[in-house]
Amino acid sequence: MRILLHRRDGVYEDWLAAFAHYLPEAQVVVWEEGKAIDPCDYAVLFVPPPGILADLAKVKAIFCTGAGVDALLKLGEQLPPVPIVRLADAGMGVQMAEYVTHAVLRYYRRFDDYQVVARQGLWEQLPAYDKQDFTVGVLGAGALGSHVIGALRHFGFPLRAWSRTPKDLSGVACYHGPAQLDSFLQGLRVVVCMLPLTPDTANLLDRARLSLLAPGGYVINVARGGLLAEPDLLALITAGQLAGATLDVFRNEPLPPQHPFWQEPRITITPHISALTLCREAVEQISGKIRAMARGELVADIVNRTLGY
Amino acid sequence: MRILLHRRDGVYEDWLAAFAHYLPEAQVVVWEEGKAIDPCDYAVLFVPPPGILADLAKVKAIFCTGAGVDALLKLGEQLPPVPIVRLADAGMGVQMAEYVTHAVLRYYRRFDDYQVVARQGLWEQLPAYDKQDFTVGVLGAGALGSHVIGALRHFGFPLRAWSRTPKDLSGVACYHGPAQLDSFLQGLRVVVCMLPLTPDTANLLDRARLSLLAPGGYVINVARGGLLAEPDLLALITAGQLAGATLDVFRNEPLPPQHPFWQEPRITITPHISALTLCREAVEQISGKIRAMARGELVADIVNRTLGY
Repeated sequence: MRILLHRRDGVYEDWLAAFAHYLPEAQVVVWEEGKAIDPCDYAVLFVPPPGILADLAKVKAIFCTGAGVDALLKLGEQLPPVPIVRLADAGMGVQMAEYVTHAVLRYYRRFDDYQVVARQGLWEQLPAYDKQDFTVGVLGAGALGSHVIGALRHFGFPLRAWSRTPKDLSGVACYHGPAQLDSFLQGLRVVVCMLPLTPDTANLLDRARLSLLAPGGYVINVARGGLLAEPDLLALITAGQLAGATLDVFRNEPLPPQHPFWQEPRITITPHISALTLCREAVEQISGKIRAMARGELVADIVNRTLGY
Repeated sequence: MRILLHRRDGVYEDWLAAFAHYLPEAQVVVWEEGKAIDPCDYAVLFVPPPGILADLAKVKAIFCTGAGVDALLKLGEQLPPVPIVRLADAGMGVQMAEYVTHAVLRYYRRFDDYQVVARQGLWEQLPAYDKQDFTVGVLGAGALGSHVIGALRHFGFPLRAWSRTPKDLSGVACYHGPAQLDSFLQGLRVVVCMLPLTPDTANLLDRARLSLLAPGGYVINVARGGLLAEPDLLALITAGQLAGATLDVFRNEPLPPQHPFWQEPRITITPHISALTLCREAVEQISGKIRAMARGELVADIVNRTLGY
């Protein structure tokens, strides 16, 4: 069995070692621009370089090493008509939960404000926010969204979730479908964006929808920059209608040096680190699925190309 | 039934309203320096003003409106020999869990470092810490400590707890008693101090004990300033042996303007807000206990004056 492997960062050592451990029967071939490669059975990649298409011609499946497959699906019909399999959690759920929980608690407990006060050498208790005014809504209630909701539940925030199809999550007000999106957003103090980027979700959080949040609301985006209308968010924060945002993803990454977000202290920027792909966990999961496919079994997490995730 | 009420901040409105709601049969008397007061049946207070002692002479019990009774017990034998009852949780557990979880995640996910990098306009992924190197130990495994441990457990940190008497907490390495304190501290990346301040625990975290933490370790103190040798902590941080501290409590509060902690950016200071007494929850709990006592029943959370909590 031959596996074609591509890493955008060009660092292969850990990945080759993990495949040697979890799938020792496979021959793993590192893809390189211009290198002649014999046909492979499976491909493992995230953001595909254009030149890789010819080498995907004979694969039986493509495994994406991230949760989001938007970069891969951009290739559209150029991709061979084989299953595309996305990573399911693989250690990303807990990382997302850490990131989002930290940001929500930071806002709710006013730790940013306390930091400002302390830097002035002031001992000053600030009025506490009321949890009843701090409804947190999670856009996207799949494996990762559910993990985040599970972490937030422990702290007693009023919770909402929105997903494409109906879900039933204990202690969470669940909304679904386009018709319920505005009701979901209405009055949220914090919206957490965890949706896949698809033609249906692009620009979902625009000025009209962001204006449904509670005054003083916050936006946390850990999904894809394309879900959020960046100038609209900035305008609402500058106007004081929204209180701030914590953003891990952007339209253009790295976020360009001249982007106005850098100059806005109410926007917290992290460089797409909310959930890193963990090499060991990813290779373990992909190896299991490859073996199942080789035995002719069905595997989970096959992307629906029409839905885009 | 007459209840003597004292609030250090002099703000009584919410407390009187809550007692009117939860214990309407009681007459609540606000204590004032120099005011003649008829004997009361119960006293409700936190830090007692010296002049209040005479008015405590005939009470049947003293209810403390905080979790820590060290300020009250300082009066020693001047206090009447009646039960002293401390507040049990009453909404403080979840607040402590919020505060501590936020601080642990902030350190573990390097959000302080990311803030520094972002302020320079840099897009730079920092090496992630390994959770296996991030053992969190909670000193004090009572109602509040258990609540904090429950929140941290969700994120998969290796956990330890230390308490005076043996405890058994699922998924937590439990230590107890003075003989096991050093083993508990050895190699911790984060120590969370949640102990009562008693003669046995004063200065517990001194240079020798803090030196047992892992290099690059962190201290979170949400209990009492007297548990921590402040100059020792500062010296270890300045020397780079410890990486930082998040402190909500101090030897002297408000923290004096000239205190060196204000000048150390690796020390995060908050003004004793990790868990505020929630008026409604506190009065509901105290009212229930007063009624039980009036019926001659035993109540929980009576302070052991010898142990000091």
